[in-house]
Amino acid sequence: MREFLAVDAGGTSSRAVVVDETGRRLGSGRAAGGNPTSVGLEGASAAVADAIAQALSTAGPGAAAEPILLANAGGGGEPFQAAILQRLQPMGVRGPILPVGDLLALFCSGTPERDGAALIAGTGAIGGAIRDGRMARVVDGTGWLLGDAGSGFWIGHKAARAVVDHLDGGPTTRLTDAVLERLGIEDDRVLVDGRPRVMGRLVAALYALRPVELAGFAPLVFALAGEDELATSIVRDAVAAQAALLRRVRRFQEDGPLVFGGSVLVEGSLRLDRSLLAPLLDAADGATPIPVADGLVGAAVLALRSGGIEVDAPLFGVLQAGIRAR
Amino acid sequence: MREFLAVDAGGTSSRAVVVDETGRRLGSGRAAGGNPTSVGLEGASAAVADAIAQALSTAGPGAAAEPILLANAGGGGEPFQAAILQRLQPMGVRGPILPVGDLLALFCSGTPERDGAALIAGTGAIGGAIRDGRMARVVDGTGWLLGDAGSGFWIGHKAARAVVDHLDGGPTTRLTDAVLERLGIEDDRVLVDGRPRVMGRLVAALYALRPVELAGFAPLVFALAGEDELATSIVRDAVAAQAALLRRVRRFQEDGPLVFGGSVLVEGSLRLDRSLLAPLLDAADGATPIPVADGLVGAAVLALRSGGIEVDAPLFGVLQAGIRAR
Repeated sequence: MREFLAVDAGGTSSRAVVVDETGRRLGSGRAAGGNPTSVGLEGASAAVADAIAQALSTAGPGAAAEPILLANAGGGGEPFQAAILQRLQPMGVRGPILPVGDLLALFCSGTPERDGAALIAGTGAIGGAIRDGRMARVVDGTGWLLGDAGSGFWIGHKAARAVVDHLDGGPTTRLTDAVLERLGIEDDRVLVDGRPRVMGRLVAALYALRPVELAGFAPLVFALAGEDELATSIVRDAVAAQAALLRRVRRFQEDGPLVFGGSVLVEGSLRLDRSLLAPLLDAADGATPIPVADGLVGAAVLALRSGGIEVDAPLFGVLQAGIRAR
Repeated sequence: MREFLAVDAGGTSSRAVVVDETGRRLGSGRAAGGNPTSVGLEGASAAVADAIAQALSTAGPGAAAEPILLANAGGGGEPFQAAILQRLQPMGVRGPILPVGDLLALFCSGTPERDGAALIAGTGAIGGAIRDGRMARVVDGTGWLLGDAGSGFWIGHKAARAVVDHLDGGPTTRLTDAVLERLGIEDDRVLVDGRPRVMGRLVAALYALRPVELAGFAPLVFALAGEDELATSIVRDAVAAQAALLRRVRRFQEDGPLVFGGSVLVEGSLRLDRSLLAPLLDAADGATPIPVADGLVGAAVLALRSGGIEVDAPLFGVLQAGIRAR
């Protein structure tokens, strides 16, 4: 019986699984974030190697002679792959590593179909058209400064700007209390040098963050959607941006299932009231979005396919059930 | 005859002037950027001291026993003032330094009135309500991440996003060729990993900049306003943001002259076709904006006032003529 090793290395955690050719899960592992761009090469390769080691040891002796399928946001690059293999050498694991994009892995986590579309909105936002099991076209994912419309950063950034504007004499919003509380800043309502003192403290605290950390305010915005005018309008604009991204992706691949990933899309948008969610469902044009938690099932699907095994609906079901149960 | 030393320390240059109590210019100097936030404490204090030294030496022996009035964006702070005075000690200059905000100095460069409003849009954007010769209320100026709506960064950022979006399948804009040419990037129209190769190069080049450097694209946007749909819409939004800032400031000070500064406002917005400029003129509500190049005249006005000298319209005229002629 052939065995396959698949890894999904995300920003917050790295997950690995060993499966056999019937889709049965033999072992699994989980470790810290494995994205070299955000965690650095050292930390990311250590986390991925850790998750793989756990998966191999729970699978038992003699596991995984097959190549390692690695799903990763940045694609990883050769130095990253070499660093992972070096850490695995003492365990007799030689590779090679087959890298795939996280968007393709996410799509394959939701469906065994080979054509369709995938959308992720977490800290960033990216969409992809999948054709014949490959990534045919990627849209957005160009980062907080240049793109990522409708992402967690995008939402949190608009919230931060709305709060600063409120303190600067602009429209009132309940986001102000929520953001100040999150940052542990009190508004003493004192005016210094022609502006509220709390403003200086808030601005200093916000510039002390890395820009992408503004994504941490996105849940505050979703929590106030429907209750606060500004929060509602930010959520409305975010859903419109997500819908525009989906439409753009569908121009490159009209048919097939639609897979959604990322906390902003799955735990934010999809849980909104029907009235706020409507534009996104309109853009889905009849397809029911399939929400998935991560790309691990898809990494396993792609590992089997890379070994020449066709993944049909029953085999996909076994893979999905086993990996979800871990 | 009493003599006064005034300095306007900006981001790109530091200007100093020695005037007497009749407003006559006795000496002047110019050196590199004197903003400690952007140039660092060392570089900024060296530039300011250099400009002062030039002004004193052209004014001749025995000049300037009075305090030094220093107009500066950040206010400067005591370490900055101490660093400047230390560099001036060998010349027998003891200070003290009287710091004022650049917005107040800008206002006083345009008018001898003591009540009114000032607006700056350069790399950033800030507005202020002036009452009884002091800054009564400051609006915006909270930087590229949190505010500065209608500024050079804001315009250049929108241009960069529009270009990335165009290459990602979005609306066509002539800004794309302009920005790619400025960055020396060629579009080879090759698709790699599901997206145009030029996109990867452009994104890498833009993230390699400090965010505020995106302000460098603002002149490209103004140049295409009226000719390119996206450029026109960015300029229209920028003018609307500047008008909103002006309205906000006017809520805190309804009467008095209106002084404009900063390259985006003076060389950008004010030179637009009447149809694009209209919203800003509407917000000015009958007041004719007085454009000024910098805050040096105002720094001199404030230096005289700090010495108990009333600056009326004739004295203001002498100051202005002398300093402009330098």
